[in-house]
Amino acid sequence: MAQAYAQLETLFARLSHIEESLALLHWDMAALMPAGGAESRARQLATLKGLHHDLLTAAATADLLDEAGGEPLSDWQAANLHEMRRDWLHAAALPGDLVTALSRAGSACEMRWRQARAAADFGDVAPFLAELLRLTREAAQVKGQALGLSPYDALLDQYEPGGRIAQIETVFADLADFLPPFLEAVLSRQPPAPAVARGPFPVQSQRALGLRLMEVLGFEFEHGRLDISQHPFCGGTPDDVRITTRYDEADFMRSLLGVIHETGHALYERGLPAAWRGQPVGRARGMSLHESQSLLMEMQACRSRGFMAFAAPLMAEAFGAAGQPGWDADSLYGANVRVAPGFIRVDADEVTYPAHVILRTRLERALIDGSLTVADLPAAWNEGFHSLLGLTPPDDRLGCLQDIHWYDGAFGYFPTYTLGAMTAAQLFAAAGAALPDLDRQIAQGQFAPLLGWLRTHVHAKASSLSTDALLLQATGQPLNPALFKAHLRRRYLDRV
Amino acid sequence: MAQAYAQLETLFARLSHIEESLALLHWDMAALMPAGGAESRARQLATLKGLHHDLLTAAATADLLDEAGGEPLSDWQAANLHEMRRDWLHAAALPGDLVTALSRAGSACEMRWRQARAAADFGDVAPFLAELLRLTREAAQVKGQALGLSPYDALLDQYEPGGRIAQIETVFADLADFLPPFLEAVLSRQPPAPAVARGPFPVQSQRALGLRLMEVLGFEFEHGRLDISQHPFCGGTPDDVRITTRYDEADFMRSLLGVIHETGHALYERGLPAAWRGQPVGRARGMSLHESQSLLMEMQACRSRGFMAFAAPLMAEAFGAAGQPGWDADSLYGANVRVAPGFIRVDADEVTYPAHVILRTRLERALIDGSLTVADLPAAWNEGFHSLLGLTPPDDRLGCLQDIHWYDGAFGYFPTYTLGAMTAAQLFAAAGAALPDLDRQIAQGQFAPLLGWLRTHVHAKASSLSTDALLLQATGQPLNPALFKAHLRRRYLDRV
Repeated sequence: MAQAYAQLETLFARLSHIEESLALLHWDMAALMPAGGAESRARQLATLKGLHHDLLTAAATADLLDEAGGEPLSDWQAANLHEMRRDWLHAAALPGDLVTALSRAGSACEMRWRQARAAADFGDVAPFLAELLRLTREAAQVKGQALGLSPYDALLDQYEPGGRIAQIETVFADLADFLPPFLEAVLSRQPPAPAVARGPFPVQSQRALGLRLMEVLGFEFEHGRLDISQHPFCGGTPDDVRITTRYDEADFMRSLLGVIHETGHALYERGLPAAWRGQPVGRARGMSLHESQSLLMEMQACRSRGFMAFAAPLMAEAFGAAGQPGWDADSLYGANVRVAPGFIRVDADEVTYPAHVILRTRLERALIDGSLTVADLPAAWNEGFHSLLGLTPPDDRLGCLQDIHWYDGAFGYFPTYTLGAMTAAQLFAAAGAALPDLDRQIAQGQFAPLLGWLRTHVHAKASSLSTDALLLQATGQPLNPALFKAHLRRRYLDRV
Repeated sequence: MAQAYAQLETLFARLSHIEESLALLHWDMAALMPAGGAESRARQLATLKGLHHDLLTAAATADLLDEAGGEPLSDWQAANLHEMRRDWLHAAALPGDLVTALSRAGSACEMRWRQARAAADFGDVAPFLAELLRLTREAAQVKGQALGLSPYDALLDQYEPGGRIAQIETVFADLADFLPPFLEAVLSRQPPAPAVARGPFPVQSQRALGLRLMEVLGFEFEHGRLDISQHPFCGGTPDDVRITTRYDEADFMRSLLGVIHETGHALYERGLPAAWRGQPVGRARGMSLHESQSLLMEMQACRSRGFMAFAAPLMAEAFGAAGQPGWDADSLYGANVRVAPGFIRVDADEVTYPAHVILRTRLERALIDGSLTVADLPAAWNEGFHSLLGLTPPDDRLGCLQDIHWYDGAFGYFPTYTLGAMTAAQLFAAAGAALPDLDRQIAQGQFAPLLGWLRTHVHAKASSLSTDALLLQATGQPLNPALFKAHLRRRYLDRV
């Protein structure tokens, strides 16, 4: 009888209900809440996070974790206990007051950032960011000591369990060497831009098309929604996955590929094993795998010649443009694999995207270790951006104000985007080896085989394995940047 | 130094953040949530309610309440302490397991009711309602003993603090005597139905018109939203008030008056004193006063000749019908004061509405005291309905399945609708005496004077006074059904 373990399962189920409530409150804040609700929402979030922290770090929890370690457990139960201990270590390291203060500062800063970004006025949000950074550095310090990690690794570990910046730097250095000459080669051989379909593209038509393609990919509308937010994201819970997008009537493709991206996230959440719902082992493994699922759909499967052949008629039909120039599969594909350095990360092409991530990773490490202050951030951003991509942002809206992450307290998150891109290439290659007909299936809008493979090799594993072990089992090798580089070469140099 | 009191304020602020989170989760469940999210939402609600209960009934709370009673307090602080004790008494009476079980059973029953109502299949939801009733009776019993009240009064007191069924029965008996001959007189003298504007009325136009009139009444969109749900309601929090409606393209007036009704609720929430946000004394007084605020707007102020003169051109404009027959103020007013017995409470006119409430009050008293079983409810409903209004519902969708209340666990709520209607008539008469120009202002769409009077005499008082004391201060007399009857006579017999 694993009594201590059973008590822990009850405790963690309650914790998951609080986490799910927080997820909904966050989603609502981003998608629907009127501005005047911000202060009370911040108080709600802070209190729920504080209660979660109190419950998780109650005196009995440490004893139960120790006791349960001596009880006979199945493999999944043992993995669950491991994840419980991980959660507890992260939480117990922080005093409850600091958790509440971080939540309040994060909400206040995020709401201010919305105005500051619109007005390209970094100074307006700077004091809020400075306070949030101060609290984050304090948390990183305390947590790092408790976990035996550097402050930055302690933050990174929240999003990427087991992730260590030293290993990531090695991979990023490899990419940083590869990309500049590769980018030059791509730009020098890039064919002329194809004819591009002209808008306006009505929001309602864009939305209908997005819903149609979500369905093609396997999104279950009985268990989710599509809404609008300034910064698209995938929120909610596995049984009620909420994805968001934003619409630009001059450019439907940007929103559409964003919807496909978030659908990849949603399919991962939805594919987590129902039997382990609410338990730590039943959660998604970490952010690099999460990002791999969104990028596998957006970049590997759908930004392909085959998928464009399938989707082009649907797109033309959605906007009443069948037969007009620019709506054939070749033009749409060509427009979607253009490479052009630009200021905005979320609009970046696959080739320049890693440079955006490398910049942010460098800057946030410096912010956390104290070698960069908030006041100096805009200048450091612009200088770093110029040295990586040869461009200088004309204002901070196109610079250090563009992303929500830091303003919401998420330091240590950015590296997972590029880890995710590499993981996506590796998983898609493995899926292609296992499903010889994959390209043809995608070109016919048949996603069930691909989704089935992902369900089995990624989603159903949840957090029962480490990221490294999962990738090894699924693909036969550890994370290997060569597969990502090979993908880029094929698409952008060989133009297959 | 009121130290115990100060600790209680901190505790009740945290409790209010949980209550606000629950309000948002409830609103989302009714307005947006996909059906597949129901089970996990029920677990979230149950856990948050359980945490709220644990926090409120923690061992220290009783001692703090006793200690604070001996501390020097301002009037508002003393009233706050009184409300805190009320909350505590209601909560401490119930074991935590029962609270959680009630929440789960309520969520499960409500979700099932949505299907059962659509299919007019009472049998489908009956086992869920029976279980919910079993738990509610248990709670009523236990709570009644703790509060020194009958089980039904213990339930009523949750919605109508200080409300007692014996007093309500006296008032309801008065109305039950007055109404049948009055109804007969109204029907015998009712003029022929005026020409009615024909639809379809597009949902988007209805929504735009609703938003326009919400603004006229004083709704602040920085602090609220209008959405859609099957059963319209006012939810959210004072800083983020969420009202809902449902649209029928064949009849815009029903939704529009519903929006005005919910706006009345929202203005009350929004007018609660900001200084007491999150404290029990800062909450709305009770459901009869809440309903008085919605009915004052819907029935007293806006279902009037004067308001229709103001609104008729806006309505005609909204649907591109200016100058067409049926869109003049007289026709619209005439159509809005038609009296016709019907099956659905929320569609009932002012004259027959009390009969709907009297029926439900009788039935729920019998369900709670055990003299009526769930299995016998449909027959008892149909028989009671026939004896009160001379009609027999053709199916349970038009009978005992029509309202959400019981299926959500809200027994003891129904009487507050008719108490609210009487209170609305009394408050509106007092406002008219204080504002001699009120009718003209309403006829010009100027609601600021009326809202100002309500803010001062009702909203700003929050829960610092009992319902009876508030009404006495605001109107100079206790609740007096004569004012409601005089209103009905003027509008429906004298046809002023």
